[in-house]
Formats: sequence, C-alpha cells, structure tokens
Amino acid sequence: MDTDTRKPTREGVNRAADKIAAILPPTPLLPFEAQGKTVYAKADCLQPMGAFKIRGAWHRLSDLSDEEKARGVVAVSSGNHAQGIAWAARELGIEATIVMPQDAPRVKLGRTASYGARVVTYNRMTENREEIAKGIAAEKGATYAHAYGDPWVIEGQGSAGIEIADQMMAQTNQPVSKIVACCGGGGLTAGLALACPDASVVPCEPEGWDDVCRSLETGEIHSVGDNPPPTACDAIQTFKTFPINFAVMKEHCREWARVSEEDIRNAQRFAFSHLRLVVEPGGAAALAAVLSGKVEVDTSTAVMLTGGNVDAASFAAVLAG
Amino acid sequence: MDTDTRKPTREGVNRAADKIAAILPPTPLLPFEAQGKTVYAKADCLQPMGAFKIRGAWHRLSDLSDEEKARGVVAVSSGNHAQGIAWAARELGIEATIVMPQDAPRVKLGRTASYGARVVTYNRMTENREEIAKGIAAEKGATYAHAYGDPWVIEGQGSAGIEIADQMMAQTNQPVSKIVACCGGGGLTAGLALACPDASVVPCEPEGWDDVCRSLETGEIHSVGDNPPPTACDAIQTFKTFPINFAVMKEHCREWARVSEEDIRNAQRFAFSHLRLVVEPGGAAALAAVLSGKVEVDTSTAVMLTGGNVDAASFAAVLAG
Repeated sequence: MDTDTRKPTREGVNRAADKIAAILPPTPLLPFEAQGKTVYAKADCLQPMGAFKIRGAWHRLSDLSDEEKARGVVAVSSGNHAQGIAWAARELGIEATIVMPQDAPRVKLGRTASYGARVVTYNRMTENREEIAKGIAAEKGATYAHAYGDPWVIEGQGSAGIEIADQMMAQTNQPVSKIVACCGGGGLTAGLALACPDASVVPCEPEGWDDVCRSLETGEIHSVGDNPPPTACDAIQTFKTFPINFAVMKEHCREWARVSEEDIRNAQRFAFSHLRLVVEPGGAAALAAVLSGKVEVDTSTAVMLTGGNVDAASFAAVLAG
Repeated sequence: MDTDTRKPTREGVNRAADKIAAILPPTPLLPFEAQGKTVYAKADCLQPMGAFKIRGAWHRLSDLSDEEKARGVVAVSSGNHAQGIAWAARELGIEATIVMPQDAPRVKLGRTASYGARVVTYNRMTENREEIAKGIAAEKGATYAHAYGDPWVIEGQGSAGIEIADQMMAQTNQPVSKIVACCGGGGLTAGLALACPDASVVPCEPEGWDDVCRSLETGEIHSVGDNPPPTACDAIQTFKTFPINFAVMKEHCREWARVSEEDIRNAQRFAFSHLRLVVEPGGAAALAAVLSGKVEVDTSTAVMLTGGNVDAASFAAVLAG
C-alpha cells in the first residue's frame, strides 16, 4: 500500500514499537513536580540523534523493499526528521537527500550532513520545499518520506506511547492518563493517540503556529493564520496538518493548548535545572503548557520532551534570560 | 557493625542495587562516539536530585534502625551528597542537617534546603567541616553519614556498576570491560570496583586535586599537594581519600587519569551537543579523560556522568567558551 492511501493503525504502532525496541533502548520517563503533583517527562531528546523523529524514520525506512532501498530516500525537514532519516539511512545503507531551510539551526544542518546525507537548502519564504523534494524523488525514483503526513512515520512516532504506557505502569502502578505532546504537523500526536487510545493526548503548539488547535476547534483542517509571528520553535513551525494526521486527532483529541515564547523559554530553563536535560524550543512546548498551567495534570500524566538539538549560543541566551 | 570497622562488600553492593532498583529506574546508558569507537555514557545526572549520590544516601539511610532514624542524620557536602541525603531523608521521614561550604553553587545550597534539610554553612578555607558535623551529630545522637568514607555509601554508589553491567550486556552483548569514573574521595570508584571486579575501573581527577592518583602511584594514601589550584569541579574537590576507599582502589585500580579544566569544559560542551545532557564540571571529569584521549576506550567502555547540578550562569559561560 502506498503512502497516500494506507491508514496508520494501532497494529502498525505495535509493530513499529517492536522494531524500535530491537535497536533503541527506551528513553527514560523522569519524575518531576508540577502543579503540586508528580508528573513524568518522556526524555526523547536522549535518542541517539537527539529527537523522537528517529522512531518514524526507522519504521519508514526499515520497511522499504531492497529495490526501494537501492533507489534512495528524500525528505524535507527543518532538522530533526532530517537527522532521523539520515541516521536510519546510514544504518540501513540507503542514500538520503534532505531538503532543509537555509535558516535551520546550524547544529541541525551540520549533524544531518555528518550522518552522510546529501543536504539541499531552500529559502523558507520564497521556495516550495515539497516541490523541490518531490522533483528530486521523481528524478531518482526515490521514496519521499514526509515528516508527518505518512502512515509509517505516524506509527513510528506512536512507539513512544507504547514505551510510556509500559513505563508508567512499572513506575507508578497506574495506566497513563494523559500525554501532553509538542505538535507540529501532528505525526507524534496522531501516533500517540493510536498507541494509547485510553489516554487523553494533548497537542501543544506555539502561539500563532496553531494550525492543529484551529483545526480541532473547527472540525476541519485549517492552516496557521496570515503572517504568523516569529517563533524559536523551528521544529514545530508547521503551516498545516495533513488529512491522515487530522483524521486520528479529530477522533481522539479533546484538549489542546497554545504556548507563548516565554512559556517555552521557562520550560527550557526548568528542564535544564530540574531534569538536567537540554531541550530545544520546539521540544519544550508540552512542558511549557504544563508549567504554565495551560494543561492540567494528574499523577499519571506524561509530558513529551521531543528534541534537544539547539545551538549553544541560543541555549546560553535562554539560560541568561 | 559501625562505620569505622565494617568493610564494604560485593554482597553489600548487590543488596544496595536491589534496594535502589525498587525506588529508582536505571538511568540510561547512552551511546556516543569517541576515539573512533562507540562507547557508553551512564547518565546518572538524570537521577531525581541530579547525581549518583542518591544511591549511597538511600542505601545508608534506609538501613538505619527506627531508633537511629528518629535521632536524625548529619552530613557534610559541597552539594550532591547533601542533596542525596536530604532527598533520602525526606522520603524516609528523617531529620537531616547538612554542613555545606559557603561557596557551594547556589543551586546546590537552595535545592538541599528545598528537600527540607537544615543547612549549616562553613568557610572552606578557615573552618573544619568534619568537626562542625561531628559536633552536631554528637549533640543529637544523630548518625553522621560521610560523603565517601562509609561502607554503605561505597556499596550504594556501586549499584551504578550493577546497572552498567546489565545494560552493557543487553545493549551490546558484551560484558563491560572498563568503567571510567569521576573521582573525589573514591566512594564511587571503590563501589564500582566491588560491583564489577572483572572490569577496569579508572578514577579521573582534576589536575592538582589528584590525591587518589598520587595514592595509587605510591601505594599509600596521600593528600593533594600544597596550594591546589582553583577548579570548577566543586563536587570532586577532595583533599584526601579514606583508608576504607583506598583499600579497594589499591587492590583493583591499575589505571587513572588527571584532567585539565579545559578538558572538563570541552566535555561539558560535548555532553550538551551530543548527548543533550547538562553535566556539571565534576560530573564531566571521566568524559573529559575519554575525549582528551587520556584514557583509552574499547567498544564496551562505560563513562560515568555523575552529576548535573550547575548554576545557569556558569553553564552558559562554558557554552560561550
């Protein structure tokens, strides 16, 4: 089945979780205090390439046929999906071409290339990255691995939910009740919703980059508003979710949140001082929603920390703020 | 048996590891590249109070009788043992008094108090902290829990070695061959040596704060030299190891290293960018030895990252450097 017609499933999430468990130990579920309760941070910033995107990338590329592998893979990403695809492609011996914005954090551009991928840059304001990527894919017959609008990618990201459910039960003797998640295009949110159908899954977006919040509020897909404000959250700076993601989120999500840039910086500082973790702005959106009280927690709430790829100078500026 | 006569044992380490596993999930063993090989960082900076010291503190205090618990506990520490004791005392309902240097990092002073401990400060250059602590302990009949020269503390710290051995086998199908460890007074080094008798355990100290290196080189306990240089490594700024620690290290350790302040800052930056971990200077000494090539690694080497309690301004300065 191809990307455009296959629907992501809970069975697919379970299969992805098994494949991922075979190569990556579970990232830790770390307790911390918020709103007077003990809640749990899922530290996916500790994945080998620094973000949860390794999950979907691995499930996607490891399912390719030998013939497809030989033709290579193309992806578009501001950096974490790029690194996930580059990492998985290197492990599997697949040639990867990644289309990245010129203004992506240097650490993400450099690291993607360091995994052996070919990096093609574009101008975020004037060029259409999807067109560039699809053009390259067509030329080579390569597989185009979308960053979120892809059933394998959704299922792979959902493997984080399978780990959370197991860890929450082992650590607290309670089933996970709520998972607060950073949300760009909705790959992770949809995956978590499939993985943990009995938990509330809460997508969190930066103010002004709230296509998923708007879509959930209206029941149909909306893009972000005109002239969205600047945000430090490069990783979740997404204009519009895809039907494949929205179908799952609409069915499942009953709560969502928008967080400010200040909420996000506070969350990065909290992760630094209380969890000893380096979390990038986009990776801190869920924590920001919890610490600011925009999403309520109980004693079996998990909070996704999705990535930690941030330039030293930017992080030092956040610490100084 | 009391602290002065009981010797730490491998059985004690195993018992400590069981007790610790019941309350704290294992910290992750994270792969990274060094010297052209994949080696593994044991991220004990992710413990709830940010350092491995929680291990020895828990083993020590949870073994007290009810009568001893009622009389309280006294400890001396620049901050991590302090927080470990304060954390364990809070969990067990024990009154804790911690004697800390006035110039300890603010984050460590504040956090220790936040766990409910009474903090008494002293001047590192003019006052004898052991005397202050023993005076308080004698007055109350409280237990004095030394930061490293204590059999329970040594056994508790050794539980990290039990976790490393299990994780290395699970992740690499190889037994752990070498554990590179940050070393202050030798509580961790001795504990690891008892835990993993077939692995090489390598203590690493800051240049000039090399009492353990000097002692291992000469076969008898030496303190650091006169006028030791300034070091950022407050956590391992120890003048002299204890006989109970040295007996184990002398029997077991065949390799050791001294690292420079620059090596340490480089290691902190590496942990930031490649592992997405906040590591304090003293917690980065082992990583510094590996990255600088002062300790050779193979493909089943573990590197202890022992703590992550560092003020934001200090950390930002390291990132900027």
